[in-house]
Amino acid sequence: MRLKNPLIALLLISTALAGGCAQLGPDPLPSWNNTAAKHAITEFVRSTTDKSSPQFVPPAERIATFDQDGTLWVEHPMYSQMMYCLDRLGVLVKEKPELKNVEPFKSILAGGCPAMANLSPKDFETFLSATLTGMTTDEFQADVKQWLATAKDPRWRRPYTDLTYQPMQEVLRYLRANGYKTFIVTGGGQDFVRAYAEQIYGIPPEQVVGSMTNTAYGYGKDGKPVLTKEAKVLLNDVDGGKPEGIHMLIGRRPCASFGNTPGDRQMLEYAKAGAGARLTMLVLHDDAKREYAYGPAQGLPDSDVGTFPQALYDQATKNGWTVISMKNDWKSVFAWQKP
Amino acid sequence: MRLKNPLIALLLISTALAGGCAQLGPDPLPSWNNTAAKHAITEFVRSTTDKSSPQFVPPAERIATFDQDGTLWVEHPMYSQMMYCLDRLGVLVKEKPELKNVEPFKSILAGGCPAMANLSPKDFETFLSATLTGMTTDEFQADVKQWLATAKDPRWRRPYTDLTYQPMQEVLRYLRANGYKTFIVTGGGQDFVRAYAEQIYGIPPEQVVGSMTNTAYGYGKDGKPVLTKEAKVLLNDVDGGKPEGIHMLIGRRPCASFGNTPGDRQMLEYAKAGAGARLTMLVLHDDAKREYAYGPAQGLPDSDVGTFPQALYDQATKNGWTVISMKNDWKSVFAWQKP
Repeated sequence: MRLKNPLIALLLISTALAGGCAQLGPDPLPSWNNTAAKHAITEFVRSTTDKSSPQFVPPAERIATFDQDGTLWVEHPMYSQMMYCLDRLGVLVKEKPELKNVEPFKSILAGGCPAMANLSPKDFETFLSATLTGMTTDEFQADVKQWLATAKDPRWRRPYTDLTYQPMQEVLRYLRANGYKTFIVTGGGQDFVRAYAEQIYGIPPEQVVGSMTNTAYGYGKDGKPVLTKEAKVLLNDVDGGKPEGIHMLIGRRPCASFGNTPGDRQMLEYAKAGAGARLTMLVLHDDAKREYAYGPAQGLPDSDVGTFPQALYDQATKNGWTVISMKNDWKSVFAWQKP
Repeated sequence: MRLKNPLIALLLISTALAGGCAQLGPDPLPSWNNTAAKHAITEFVRSTTDKSSPQFVPPAERIATFDQDGTLWVEHPMYSQMMYCLDRLGVLVKEKPELKNVEPFKSILAGGCPAMANLSPKDFETFLSATLTGMTTDEFQADVKQWLATAKDPRWRRPYTDLTYQPMQEVLRYLRANGYKTFIVTGGGQDFVRAYAEQIYGIPPEQVVGSMTNTAYGYGKDGKPVLTKEAKVLLNDVDGGKPEGIHMLIGRRPCASFGNTPGDRQMLEYAKAGAGARLTMLVLHDDAKREYAYGPAQGLPDSDVGTFPQALYDQATKNGWTVISMKNDWKSVFAWQKP
C-alpha cells in the first residue's frame, strides 16, 4: 500500500508505536513454532489491547510477571546466584582464613555445589548471610557486575548472561510493545537480579521483585549516606511469597504470569483469578539436547533446583494454564544456538 | 513562526512529546511565583534533560520521590489516614460492641483525634492493627475508596482528595513530561495511599512506597486466592526507613526528592549524595491564611503531626536544599482557591 498523504502515513506509524494495538508487520515471536502456546500469547495480546474487544485492558493495568531462574534463563544444574555465593565465599576465606575451619563453610569449601544441596535450612541461611550481607548496596551491585563479567556456565563456557531464552526475550519485548509493564518476580535475591536485569532484559530495578533482606541507613567513612545489606528477611519470594511480593512492590494483580516450578504456583493462581483475559504459562524443561530435561512430569529424576512434578502438570491442566514445551514450542532456545 | 512543511511541524511536536528535552511553550509551573524555588526546578530539569549538558541524566535513571502528607497535600491538623482509622474504629465497634470498654479503643472513642496523640507507641500500634489489618487487600482498597468519596476535611468541608497542592501537581506533571518517573515515598500506609494516588496524582500503585505490614496468601470462601492484611511491620517508612524503602521498591537513588519534615531528612540526604545535578526541596508551611503555619522554624508552636524545626532549616542551608515558602513561592495553593 502506498499512501498519497505523508501526514497520514506518519500518523499511522505513531499510532502503531504508541502500543495501542497488537503489532502488525513482522512476526513478533520468530523463535516460537506455530503451536498452541504461541497462539495463546498472540491471542491474549490481541484480546487485551484491541479497544473493541470485550476483554480490553487499560494500559495502566497491563502488568506481566515472570519468574527468572528456569523461566527466563537456565537454572540447571545450579542457580547462578549460588555459584556467585560460592565464589564469594572463596574471597571471604582469603580475607578471614579462620572461616575455613568453621561450619557450614568447611563442608561447602570441601564439597562445592553438591554440598550446598545437603545443608540444613539454618546452615544455608548462615551461608547466604555471610556471602550476601555486610557490604553496602553499591558495593554489592558492583561486585555482582564484576562477577558476571567473568564467571562462566560450566556446560557452555559462556557468561550466565548469555543463557537467557530467546523465545522469552521475544515475549518480553512483544508485551512491552503492546503497553505491558514487565516485572521479574524471582525466588532469587532481588539485589542480585537487579544487577543485570536492565542490561539483559530491559527490565529496570524498580520492576524486579525478589527475595530480600533489610538494609540499614547510615554514613560511610567519608560521611556520605550508605545503605548496608543486613540479614533480616523481609520477603521469601517463593510460593505464597510471590503474590505477597507482587502486592508489596506492584500493588496490582498481573494479567499475565510465567513460571516453571511449584514455587510459581501461587503467582499463577493469583494472576488467573482476576477478571477478563489471563495468560498463565509454565515452561517445561523437556529438551535435553538443546537445554535440559528434568522433573517427574517427564518421567525424569527430580532436580535439586527447579522441578516440574506431576501435581503441577495436573493443576495446569485443571486451571487452564498453558504448558510450554521447550522441545516442541521453541524453534530455538538461545540467541547464539543454531535452530 | 509558521512552518511551511507540515511534516517538520509534526516531527517537532513528536520530539517535544517524547520528553527528550525541557518543555517549550506555556509556563509548566503557572502556580509558582518567579522566585529562586521555581528557578531551581526549571534549571534542574533543563540541566538533566538537555543532551548537551554535562549533567544530562539518561531517561531510565530519572527518578523523583515525593513525601505525601504535608508535601503533596494537607497534613494538618491530622493525617487523613488517622481520620480514616478513627471512622473505621466506629464501624468495628458497631460490629463488636465489647471493644468500647477495651483500651486503647475506649480512650480514643472518648477523646477523638487529641486522644490519639497521647497514645503510647504500643497502644498506637494496637489501634492501627485493629483498623488496618484483618481484611483482604481488595476489601481494604474498596473501603478506603468509599471513605474518601464521603469524608470531608473539617476546615474546608471538602473531600481530602481536593486538598492537594496545585504547585506540586504542576511539578509532578512537569517532571513526568521530561521523562522522570514520579514516586510517592510516604510515612503513611502504602495500601492507603495507593487507593487514591493514581486518581489524584497520576501515580500508579507500583510507584507508591509507604509504611507496610505483611499480607498472607490464602483462599477465600469461594476458593479464590486472596491476600489478607496482617500486622508484621515490613517497613516503617520514615527517617532512615525512607531510603531503605526506596532501595526495597525502586532500587535506584532518586535525582530529585521533596519533603517537609525531619522524617524526610534521610531521603533528601540520600538523593543529594548522588553524582550530578540534584533537586532537593522542603515545603515550609508558613501560610496561615491560605493553608497553615506551624513549626518552630517560624517561631510557631510545634505541631502534633508535621513540623519544621530549626535544625532542619539549618541542615537545608548547609546541604544546599531549597526551602519552598508556601507564602512567598506559591501563587496559589489549591486548584479551587482564588490566588
